[in-house]
Amino acid sequence: MSTPSPNVLPLLRTDGARLWNDLMTLGAIAATPAGGSFRPTATDGDRDARNLFALWARDAGLSVIVDGVGNMFARREGTDPDLPPVLAGSHLDTQMPGGKFDGPLGVLAALEAVRTIERAGIRTRRAIEVVNWTNEEGARFAPGLLGSAAFADRLALDTALQSRDRGGVVLGEELSRIGYRGPAPVGGRPVDSYLELHIEQGPALEQAGITIGAVTHAQHFGAALVTFTGANSHAHTTAMARRCNALAGAARCVVEIESIGEALEPHGRVGAATLDVWPNNRVIVPHRAEVGFLIVHAELAGRDAALDAIAAAACRIAANLGLTAEMTRSIPRDGFEFPADMVALTEQAAADLGYPSLRLPTWTGHDALSMHYACPTALVFVPCRDGWSHSEREWCAPEHATAGADVLANMILRRANR
Amino acid sequence: MSTPSPNVLPLLRTDGARLWNDLMTLGAIAATPAGGSFRPTATDGDRDARNLFALWARDAGLSVIVDGVGNMFARREGTDPDLPPVLAGSHLDTQMPGGKFDGPLGVLAALEAVRTIERAGIRTRRAIEVVNWTNEEGARFAPGLLGSAAFADRLALDTALQSRDRGGVVLGEELSRIGYRGPAPVGGRPVDSYLELHIEQGPALEQAGITIGAVTHAQHFGAALVTFTGANSHAHTTAMARRCNALAGAARCVVEIESIGEALEPHGRVGAATLDVWPNNRVIVPHRAEVGFLIVHAELAGRDAALDAIAAAACRIAANLGLTAEMTRSIPRDGFEFPADMVALTEQAAADLGYPSLRLPTWTGHDALSMHYACPTALVFVPCRDGWSHSEREWCAPEHATAGADVLANMILRRANR
Repeated sequence: MSTPSPNVLPLLRTDGARLWNDLMTLGAIAATPAGGSFRPTATDGDRDARNLFALWARDAGLSVIVDGVGNMFARREGTDPDLPPVLAGSHLDTQMPGGKFDGPLGVLAALEAVRTIERAGIRTRRAIEVVNWTNEEGARFAPGLLGSAAFADRLALDTALQSRDRGGVVLGEELSRIGYRGPAPVGGRPVDSYLELHIEQGPALEQAGITIGAVTHAQHFGAALVTFTGANSHAHTTAMARRCNALAGAARCVVEIESIGEALEPHGRVGAATLDVWPNNRVIVPHRAEVGFLIVHAELAGRDAALDAIAAAACRIAANLGLTAEMTRSIPRDGFEFPADMVALTEQAAADLGYPSLRLPTWTGHDALSMHYACPTALVFVPCRDGWSHSEREWCAPEHATAGADVLANMILRRANR
Repeated sequence: MSTPSPNVLPLLRTDGARLWNDLMTLGAIAATPAGGSFRPTATDGDRDARNLFALWARDAGLSVIVDGVGNMFARREGTDPDLPPVLAGSHLDTQMPGGKFDGPLGVLAALEAVRTIERAGIRTRRAIEVVNWTNEEGARFAPGLLGSAAFADRLALDTALQSRDRGGVVLGEELSRIGYRGPAPVGGRPVDSYLELHIEQGPALEQAGITIGAVTHAQHFGAALVTFTGANSHAHTTAMARRCNALAGAARCVVEIESIGEALEPHGRVGAATLDVWPNNRVIVPHRAEVGFLIVHAELAGRDAALDAIAAAACRIAANLGLTAEMTRSIPRDGFEFPADMVALTEQAAADLGYPSLRLPTWTGHDALSMHYACPTALVFVPCRDGWSHSEREWCAPEHATAGADVLANMILRRANR
């Protein structure tokens, strides 16, 4: 083992075959017939994936720490215990269903990066921790980016643990059930930096034929629920003209949101993704219906204007149908720029390895968006086939996974040896 | 006690205050703040309502029999045990939420009718059974009219007992849990006739200022589910033009169904009442959405043409959005005419009591629609305020409840003394 000078760091190459094997093995946990995975937070599948990650981390000589919200840190000590560690990772939870790469790539590439540093016989000055953040997806429990937000003090721990799924099950209790409500404090400790590798989840890299994306900034995100309230009555006997059908209002609102979303392109997009109806029984004209959507826009003013337009459309629709409408906006997630030196670190690592890179924004949330508030953060993208994700069609070519892991390994090494 | 000759039957008047007290007391079980009740089949509320009905029936000297699907028969013996009994009743289950009258009026008026016959000191030739049918509403378990359909051999007992609610709970097991999966065989015995009193659930009687509706025929009913299938993908990163949003298709279908429903008036109506979305998560463009609706029409051909129009609209919408659509029609319930002598019996009883009556069809399902296939059946309507039902706004004026009970009591007496 040696501690190289920061000026003469070797160029690392990860074991792409091993990383691919890990991705496919983890993807087999709670796999779906169409090639995806179904591992929402704190399900049995999530537990099994966590167990496997912990097993592999211990095999690699790392010690595994679990904090009070289930975040997992697989730690390799550095030579100077006074220096804050470098964190690198992502998440193992998936959408319902999701793919094999959204999340696991960032965790397993970071694990393979640490193995590569170990194989190279390098002792780093700083400790390195491979992280699996709890509930990035927000698929089962809200909000998304939950574990990283709690770590970065962007979300109160109690709020996080009290989050309930649609069946009323409490996150904190489910974490206890699967054995992952750990003893370590949540955040509150200094961190040198956070590095995250992720599939792009869009088509820009693939279309440009470029392997590495250096993420410069996050777009402006928002979300809202539009609730239509009418009055229930008998679906057989109520004359059409007398109905106050909340579903009819919600349906028109969905159509309107689609139309607003089309007009935003290419600067932003919004489309309805959820609809809940009460009592949702064929014999009753529904008295309540709730439309949920996310919005993303390159401009803050563009995002807010679109939200205003949807609210106005909902009120107009409601007035025409004898309903009331109310739009509840989630706390918005305004865009920001990643530190220039972290973007440059990505570009330099890619250049050293001979991979072309492209600067681009992220159009969706990642744990890096939480960690940006806690420490210098870099987000690195690799292409995914046809831009698909949150889908069983999601796919990352093995050579792109390897390239991303190579870039990540060298970034980790450079940060950890500062 | 005496057994009067059929030609010199006394004119009965029920105790309206007692009936009203029973209606309000039963309505207090699983009551909702806005004045309705929430007693779907085999819930704790349904159990409590059943227990109260059984208590009152035994207080009235009746013996209570429960069959294998939870139908309850409160029996008063006749003088000739060889004659099939007269059945009168309705159901105690409600919508979610429902009102205090849809169902309970028919059961409690029949109970009050039997008390009135008892008070008049009359022994009838035939036995009289006051019936509470299981799961008329179809609110929790499908299909509606379940208990009466099983009794009338229109629905296999196994199918009925295996019905599952949205949470996967099995009706047969829930009936056992609440203590109402009884020992008596389901149906398979001769019945003289079935008499059912119900609120109209429409505005015709109120608008005409007439107290008693003699139901001549049932309209033509249908139901269907339209399933749109797209493909899921990331709701932030998928360009609008690339989305295959099943919810967008379902929403357009809801709008189209409303429009078709408006064009059917006054001969029929159809409106979307349910919508389920998968995965129903804001971060994912939905891959599946399912619209459910009921249709009713005065003409069989009109019903089927409207169903065809909806199916065609769904396919057109799906083609425009890159989705597929499939419409699954439930087994239709074709209309029929009630026996002329049963309609005349209603009219005669009303006339004898001095209540004006009106012939009208039923625009919705009742247990009488099952029992029509088992024995001569009469369905009697009284007005409900503003025509509302399946709603907490549902209301029947006390004088109309009394009038209905009076008519029912005299009809029961005439049939039971044949």
